[in-house]
Amino acid sequence: MVNTAVILAAGLGSRLKEHTAHKPKGFLVIDDLPIIERSILQLRKSEIEHIWIGTGYLSQEYERLAQKYPQVNCVYNDRYRDSGSMYTLYNMRESVREDFLLLESDLLYDIAGLKNLLADTRSDVILSSGATHSNDEVYIEMDEEGHLIAMSKQIELLGRVDAELVGISKVSLDTYQRMCRLVEAEFHNHLKWDYEQALVEVGKKKPIAVKKIEKFTWCEIDTEEHLQRAKEVIYPKLKQPAAHLSLPIKRNILLNPGPATTTDTVKLAQIVPDICPREQEFGDLMEWIAEQLTVFVAPKSEYDTVLFSGSGTAAVESVISSVIGEGKLLILSNGAYGERMAEIAQVYHIDYEVLESSSVLPLSLDAVEASIIRNKNKLTHVAVVHNETTSGILNDIDAIGKLCALHEVDLIVDAMSSYGAIPINMKASNLSFLISSSNKNLQGMAGISFIVACKEKLQKIKEYSPKSYYLDLYKQYEYFQRTHQLRFTPPVQTFYALEQAIIETQNEGIEQRYRRYTESWQTLIKGLDHLQLQYLVPIQYHSRIITSIKEPTSRNYEFGAMHDYLYNNGFTIYPGKIGQTASFRVANIGAITYQDIERFLKSMEEYLSM
Amino acid sequence: MVNTAVILAAGLGSRLKEHTAHKPKGFLVIDDLPIIERSILQLRKSEIEHIWIGTGYLSQEYERLAQKYPQVNCVYNDRYRDSGSMYTLYNMRESVREDFLLLESDLLYDIAGLKNLLADTRSDVILSSGATHSNDEVYIEMDEEGHLIAMSKQIELLGRVDAELVGISKVSLDTYQRMCRLVEAEFHNHLKWDYEQALVEVGKKKPIAVKKIEKFTWCEIDTEEHLQRAKEVIYPKLKQPAAHLSLPIKRNILLNPGPATTTDTVKLAQIVPDICPREQEFGDLMEWIAEQLTVFVAPKSEYDTVLFSGSGTAAVESVISSVIGEGKLLILSNGAYGERMAEIAQVYHIDYEVLESSSVLPLSLDAVEASIIRNKNKLTHVAVVHNETTSGILNDIDAIGKLCALHEVDLIVDAMSSYGAIPINMKASNLSFLISSSNKNLQGMAGISFIVACKEKLQKIKEYSPKSYYLDLYKQYEYFQRTHQLRFTPPVQTFYALEQAIIETQNEGIEQRYRRYTESWQTLIKGLDHLQLQYLVPIQYHSRIITSIKEPTSRNYEFGAMHDYLYNNGFTIYPGKIGQTASFRVANIGAITYQDIERFLKSMEEYLSM
Repeated sequence: MVNTAVILAAGLGSRLKEHTAHKPKGFLVIDDLPIIERSILQLRKSEIEHIWIGTGYLSQEYERLAQKYPQVNCVYNDRYRDSGSMYTLYNMRESVREDFLLLESDLLYDIAGLKNLLADTRSDVILSSGATHSNDEVYIEMDEEGHLIAMSKQIELLGRVDAELVGISKVSLDTYQRMCRLVEAEFHNHLKWDYEQALVEVGKKKPIAVKKIEKFTWCEIDTEEHLQRAKEVIYPKLKQPAAHLSLPIKRNILLNPGPATTTDTVKLAQIVPDICPREQEFGDLMEWIAEQLTVFVAPKSEYDTVLFSGSGTAAVESVISSVIGEGKLLILSNGAYGERMAEIAQVYHIDYEVLESSSVLPLSLDAVEASIIRNKNKLTHVAVVHNETTSGILNDIDAIGKLCALHEVDLIVDAMSSYGAIPINMKASNLSFLISSSNKNLQGMAGISFIVACKEKLQKIKEYSPKSYYLDLYKQYEYFQRTHQLRFTPPVQTFYALEQAIIETQNEGIEQRYRRYTESWQTLIKGLDHLQLQYLVPIQYHSRIITSIKEPTSRNYEFGAMHDYLYNNGFTIYPGKIGQTASFRVANIGAITYQDIERFLKSMEEYLSM
Repeated sequence: MVNTAVILAAGLGSRLKEHTAHKPKGFLVIDDLPIIERSILQLRKSEIEHIWIGTGYLSQEYERLAQKYPQVNCVYNDRYRDSGSMYTLYNMRESVREDFLLLESDLLYDIAGLKNLLADTRSDVILSSGATHSNDEVYIEMDEEGHLIAMSKQIELLGRVDAELVGISKVSLDTYQRMCRLVEAEFHNHLKWDYEQALVEVGKKKPIAVKKIEKFTWCEIDTEEHLQRAKEVIYPKLKQPAAHLSLPIKRNILLNPGPATTTDTVKLAQIVPDICPREQEFGDLMEWIAEQLTVFVAPKSEYDTVLFSGSGTAAVESVISSVIGEGKLLILSNGAYGERMAEIAQVYHIDYEVLESSSVLPLSLDAVEASIIRNKNKLTHVAVVHNETTSGILNDIDAIGKLCALHEVDLIVDAMSSYGAIPINMKASNLSFLISSSNKNLQGMAGISFIVACKEKLQKIKEYSPKSYYLDLYKQYEYFQRTHQLRFTPPVQTFYALEQAIIETQNEGIEQRYRRYTESWQTLIKGLDHLQLQYLVPIQYHSRIITSIKEPTSRNYEFGAMHDYLYNNGFTIYPGKIGQTASFRVANIGAITYQDIERFLKSMEEYLSM
């Protein structure tokens, strides 16, 4: 775990004129706090224990900070007037002897950026964002794997612009030492190297990852114009959302399998000036949302997202009623949501067959393959639920996708309870249609469902005669491509909430979200053991997102009473949905942590010991 | 127009103990203001010019108020210790010589209550609410037409409880004089008459209307417990919504035909603690919403509302795909929404026929009847759009409904752009299915659509094999009746916004809302005349809700440029949708007034004269 940070703070900040006549850029004040102090506080909150500041211009200001914060130490660059940022960094090589976060001193940023880099398992990662139009951008070019190729303020030096440098990076000791060796040989020529140049050079020898958070909230402050934007646009976004509301919003812990607990920022994102959704501004919002929903799971060159106003089931119905045509559908079912697909196929008189499996075990790949082979002549599609919401079983969609590739049939995946938490790679796993909704692991509000689909497969259904009007997948797709509009009135405010939920998902990162969920699940499992409660699905098959728990047999237990006791304490649990076994469910999704699960377990223990 | 109010304020308020030892009940202070002063300020805001206060106990306090507010005069009841409220009222007969609003002095209430009574065209109206559980209720029994039968604190004296008395009424001079005459003869027996008793007695001779606002926000303060509830529950609801938010919400004037401009209170209603929609609390909310949506247009004994998550089209599709069975549908079309019904019927292979009519004229009843007769053998259903959103034509659904009754076919009405503003009586007009959505005249957020349906007709479709799964009308109905839940995840926050929007619709009243819309439309028509712009539909057929306007032919006019100019000034207009004529549309719906239309016209004039 990285616990050191380096802040480059030697520069003159001369473009800020009178603002920096008597203090370095880091001491620009926004809402009563110098930006460098806000940064230090954010680093401390992120469990950074050592902060090295590379100083130069008016270094005594930073020395005073070092007295105030025991974590802070300064290293003075006495050639700050004629050197670049790399020299300031090089100058710290005696002090910095471990992996570190590298920050510029003139940043105002969302703490989520630090957390995201720290949670990343790779050792060298540069944080980047989508276009800021801030007027002083450092552009980044990266390769297909998201590794750094080039970085420059001069757009013409890049083959392509993929992202913008934020000025926060995670640097390994090895990379740092390489950067130092590289510039050392050149310093006699000129001292003006930027650390960005050195990183690019090292990047030619070893992979340096670029982590892009599309709508990351941040700015650098180099000019008067930047300062104004920082105060008027960026800072208000960074302020705690509760500050906008004089009423605190009661925090309920929803342990039902969605809608999930949301953040206050997602709740407040619903409060927007009224807008007609046919305006381009709103079309742009939906287009952005559709693109982000695609890139979470697939390359946007080959996949597109189709949005619907409705629950997740609406999107499942759209796919099943729209894509089968004259073909045949094999539904792999080990729970209620598999059955639901069969019910939909039935209504539309689709040729289908169900492979029923145990509701407490994942699907058997052998049985799946046997079914595919048996239906070989007519079969065109297979459908499966990824994380079966009824049980919390995780089905192996990657293996099933590969089987489908082998037998040349298309795979439809209901990813309602997995999308947004469990990493999915549609292309690698050969998934043609993936269905989910706004209100589960994405942690948005209910009312929007969507389908990520392979473009080629969407084109294939163009000629099929529609079986539904509202849920006509091809028409919804084609209309959106053409107009960036839904065919019918979209749920406006729910889209704004979804935008914020996506930003927060990107801030956290899907892998990290799954790690957080897993931590909650581990806490739950330990707690269930302690309470001698059993789960229905063998532990190795758990999705780590939903757990089905056998009801206690003790005399004083009654689901309704336990539910009400927990509900009054702010926890919502959900009845079970599996065959004959009396059970209930706990979903550890949403904006909650393992600590909420600990409090929940304590509350459940209280009930059970009453 | 009533411009006088009478406040009964003679009582001792002895149940409030120390709170009323040194001041009358009206001087109980909530948020730094005595409740009587808040009431006076609300009356002034409602254009009441004369306020008579009937005083008694500690009358000098009220005398001081009379000095502060020129509108206020006091009439002292020297027998306040042994008389009832009717004597205080009787005592004012020399002063009060016109129709007036009658209020109790110990009320905390939403100003919407005053506005609603003042806008009511009837001369004697008692304001009432749904159950408050406040512990000092005066219950009301009314007849089928909503007229007063009885009123009492003793529930056992009533045949049935229909509402609760608020303590605000509109009383005509005639009724007041009758009340006085009635009690005058009895005062020698006892002085303790309440004004409620006198009203009930008069009500036996002449109709006294009871206006019920289901979730009216109010309380009376008679006890310590009431005072606490007033401070903790009622007052926070009454506070200006903007007070909850430190950021003001920019007010845009949406003149597109929905989603409409909403109030801040509706926007803020979306901010609720997270809740699992399967909880009973949420089921109760949806049940309440469904019931209110029914009673706006039909008696709940014979009609029910079915809710869907989706746009209005989803609900239209639900009806068309679910109710025709093996029958035949005649679609009366004079615009795009009529055509849309045909497109849906087509997708589901329903036997249908379209009667096409001019898109700028209402349907001809003769042609409709001829079509019905021509199809007599097979025809089971007729479908029509009430207010055709494309043109703003109002079709006469009452006449068409009566034709359908005559020929024994069921009428389906798309009331998307009329429901909530134009009064509809489904039973009187013989409408079987009425379809609308949350985001037009109801002034809620988009995401919910609904069908008000005759229960008997819903039962008839029970055996039909479903053509859609998500939009299966009978299943959605049956499941909701049984569980008070939607079959699939509902848009939770949008429902909370709809609850608030319904409360505000009830506060305003549908007739009064239509009057407000009409006033905006009149302002619009006048302004168009002034600008020499023409509308497409002859004025007598206007819905007064949507107006289609011919584009100006002047050289400097271009729709996109005008739209953008208006948009930048906070007004959103919408392109036209009628045949070959270049047109645009203005919908005067939502939380706007004729003054907004005036500002809009000014802005349009600016553009046109550029």
